[in-house]
Amino acid sequence: MIGVEAQSASGLQRPYNHLKRLFHEIGLLRSISGTLNWDAAVNLPPGGRRLRSDQLALIDAAIYDRLSANRTRDLLAAALEMAASLERLDRINLDLMGREIGHVTAVPKGLSSALVRAQADCEGVWAAAKPESDFAAVAPLAAEVLNLTRQVSVAKSRRLGLSPQEALIDYWDPGTSLRDFAGLFAPLKARLPEFIDRIERLQSPDRCPIMPAMPAAIQLEVCSRLARDLGYDFDHGRIDQSAQAFFVDDCPEDVRITTRPDPDDYRSAVFGILHEIGHSFYERALPRDWLYQPIGRPASAGMQESQSLLFEKLIGRHPAFLAMIAGQMKSATGDPGPSPEHVSQHLRRVERTPIRTDADEVTYPLHVIIRCELEAELVSGALDFTDLPSAWHEAYRDLLGVTPKSDREGCLQDIHWYRGLYGYFQSYVLGSLISAQLLEAARSSSPEIDAGLSRTDLSSLRSWLQSNIYCHGRAYSALQLVTTATGKPLSVEPLMRHYEQRYVARPHGAH
Amino acid sequence: MIGVEAQSASGLQRPYNHLKRLFHEIGLLRSISGTLNWDAAVNLPPGGRRLRSDQLALIDAAIYDRLSANRTRDLLAAALEMAASLERLDRINLDLMGREIGHVTAVPKGLSSALVRAQADCEGVWAAAKPESDFAAVAPLAAEVLNLTRQVSVAKSRRLGLSPQEALIDYWDPGTSLRDFAGLFAPLKARLPEFIDRIERLQSPDRCPIMPAMPAAIQLEVCSRLARDLGYDFDHGRIDQSAQAFFVDDCPEDVRITTRPDPDDYRSAVFGILHEIGHSFYERALPRDWLYQPIGRPASAGMQESQSLLFEKLIGRHPAFLAMIAGQMKSATGDPGPSPEHVSQHLRRVERTPIRTDADEVTYPLHVIIRCELEAELVSGALDFTDLPSAWHEAYRDLLGVTPKSDREGCLQDIHWYRGLYGYFQSYVLGSLISAQLLEAARSSSPEIDAGLSRTDLSSLRSWLQSNIYCHGRAYSALQLVTTATGKPLSVEPLMRHYEQRYVARPHGAH
Repeated sequence: MIGVEAQSASGLQRPYNHLKRLFHEIGLLRSISGTLNWDAAVNLPPGGRRLRSDQLALIDAAIYDRLSANRTRDLLAAALEMAASLERLDRINLDLMGREIGHVTAVPKGLSSALVRAQADCEGVWAAAKPESDFAAVAPLAAEVLNLTRQVSVAKSRRLGLSPQEALIDYWDPGTSLRDFAGLFAPLKARLPEFIDRIERLQSPDRCPIMPAMPAAIQLEVCSRLARDLGYDFDHGRIDQSAQAFFVDDCPEDVRITTRPDPDDYRSAVFGILHEIGHSFYERALPRDWLYQPIGRPASAGMQESQSLLFEKLIGRHPAFLAMIAGQMKSATGDPGPSPEHVSQHLRRVERTPIRTDADEVTYPLHVIIRCELEAELVSGALDFTDLPSAWHEAYRDLLGVTPKSDREGCLQDIHWYRGLYGYFQSYVLGSLISAQLLEAARSSSPEIDAGLSRTDLSSLRSWLQSNIYCHGRAYSALQLVTTATGKPLSVEPLMRHYEQRYVARPHGAH
Repeated sequence: MIGVEAQSASGLQRPYNHLKRLFHEIGLLRSISGTLNWDAAVNLPPGGRRLRSDQLALIDAAIYDRLSANRTRDLLAAALEMAASLERLDRINLDLMGREIGHVTAVPKGLSSALVRAQADCEGVWAAAKPESDFAAVAPLAAEVLNLTRQVSVAKSRRLGLSPQEALIDYWDPGTSLRDFAGLFAPLKARLPEFIDRIERLQSPDRCPIMPAMPAAIQLEVCSRLARDLGYDFDHGRIDQSAQAFFVDDCPEDVRITTRPDPDDYRSAVFGILHEIGHSFYERALPRDWLYQPIGRPASAGMQESQSLLFEKLIGRHPAFLAMIAGQMKSATGDPGPSPEHVSQHLRRVERTPIRTDADEVTYPLHVIIRCELEAELVSGALDFTDLPSAWHEAYRDLLGVTPKSDREGCLQDIHWYRGLYGYFQSYVLGSLISAQLLEAARSSSPEIDAGLSRTDLSSLRSWLQSNIYCHGRAYSALQLVTTATGKPLSVEPLMRHYEQRYVARPHGAH
């Protein structure tokens, strides 16, 4: 557990302590952006959009200016010279500071602020274009975001000694190479399609009975009750409605989450809230003594997503939790319709569908692999953004056997590329794999964890996660943490074993 | 109307243009504080308070640092040297920049940030102490805020060549001297008590029938409908519930307002929302071309309050608007109780009560004068903060003839001194006087304004305010604007005439 070692403060360490104060400020600035972004998604009147975009650009520029100042460069150099006098965790923190500074200063200020602007413009147009399935409206702006992102990737590539694509990924999943990804993605891509065929043959061919359409207000009520019962910390967060479910990151004292009720399919809101609750558990448990320091952040985006996917996909489809959800929905609607057993079956159904965020846990990794492959081509220049729709359709047909009915259900569905979030998608595959490997190790470490899950009591599992993952912050890489916590390097086997157990060995029963 | 003159940009004007960019950033930073403060009042979970206070302190420090930087001092000096080459409005803007810089840099950074911290701590304790009427809990922190404020007033006094008290007031009501105030407050203090006696004798001695207790949700609904019908701009704002009604200032593109429903007395929420709507009209109509420049802000706090008081007190108690409010409340509650005429009478009743924000329009100025006099003693050191409760009780007994039942109804009722808002109270008296003088002049300028009010149509009045007040921003002082718009210097006569007309000449009828 980090944070218990003394943080000495001799004169020698003055430059490092200045850097700590600087990074505390950076952390506060990021948390301000978090609140402003949350507000934009939940409250902002339409006429306030331009102001909000100016405010966010100003905060971004303030972070850039602080990290790229000559004084910061000098402090870093001075601190590195004296690194040997620091405690171990402070040395790691200093190393992480250097990496953050490297990522930011690799990009010239003009390029950085041009990208911030282009992202804001593009995201706004995307939000309007998506419901209309109007790819042409947003394509030119998205192409410009991609163009600037390519320049960023080249600039970072030079500085960091990585390939352009790796340089983008390194920001989100530091210490994970393209070779690591290839070794993990290839077996999934090879084995999953056939595996899904097997499950489909085992599932009853008729569609399960589905709960009737459910008003947004009732879905919100169900989400709030679920959150309360599962231990979401309302003293340090709140639940609201937004067009896209998300949590406020970089803000461990105020981890707000949102949900997006879909009147026609309540599953989206219910699993979405479990997803965000998983993120909130991680954020709330990060080491308090290192709040807003680089070492106090989650280990990586992949580790962050492992926690959301753990609670959404693995725990969320566990029979005890399915029964809990079904029961709560029944009591919220007062509907005498299908039995909780039928609802459970509906909730955990495996299906080839076009939307990633609504995907079941088995098809999910294929959705993400499609994006990773397309993104690699976009970044390398092999694929023009304007050609994305047809490439997307082709990839879905080939790998998942479904054809999106529109770009809204296709390449417009995810916000990532439109807000400039390149280098992020792989973290969802990493997250899937990590979640399964952690859960398997946790279960085998103590029978109490399984027993707790059977009565929807998360305390033993959370306490295992706390001492094996959460408390370490970013002191180790995600892959190191997984190896230490589970005794084995990350692999696809635990996830495949989990699928096998839940969907093939006992397709209608417990686990 | 400002904003139509060309803003030239020759090389000579480079320092001034740098300052304009700087002040645009300052404006954005202030608007960020506005959003964060709004969020704290409306949404913030309790565990997020410390973080929020750190965020706000960081923004304050960022503003301080920018305004007090050597570069800013040099730019200002260079721009002043070339001021003759600027257009008239740019010269005024530059002058206002110099004043803002003077106010900020007069205070040493250590004192400035100590005050920010003390204010945040004190405000938090006050919020908990007020409902408990626990003056002792907050007194030491409030005394420290006062102590630091005195130091600030002395520092500003030296720099600005004003008395310490005037130096505090100058920040909010620039260009108004203590002599101006004395000349306006003395006649009110001398004439109002007797005048209130007269009205009380004219009012029916029985208390009017009151509408039954009204749930907060219904009051919110009434407030929203009123706002919509009166032309509040929901594209650039929203209405929420908070413990204290307020509007988000310094944010003309997103002027959110809040309301505080009191289930036992709906008048507070109804008139409160009219008050905030008045502020929003002014903010929304400020000159767009000067957004976030000093000249683009409201003329003064007194002028700002004149707009809220105009719509809350003068328009809000106009018979046509009373009927509108009464009708909307009746339809929202579906209550068959008292007739709209009775509700109207209840709404406009003049009464000696202990709470300023709930006061009727006639007793209101006396509430404020009490505060101005006590504040002068606090700032000069003649009164210790710990002795405030007894001084408060005495002043209320002497001037208003009421004795608060508790400190909650006494010196704990207003947030101002607990959040360090010294030098502000006089703006409410100025606002009362200005609102009456402007309304009188507007009415006599065109019969259409009165005719509009009789059918609750504000468009003619707002258009008069737009061209006489709003469009000028801060290009003139509040007193200059009043003189130009009404043809006479500000005096108490229009307000006294208005009282006479509404409450004595036609105590039960129109006007």
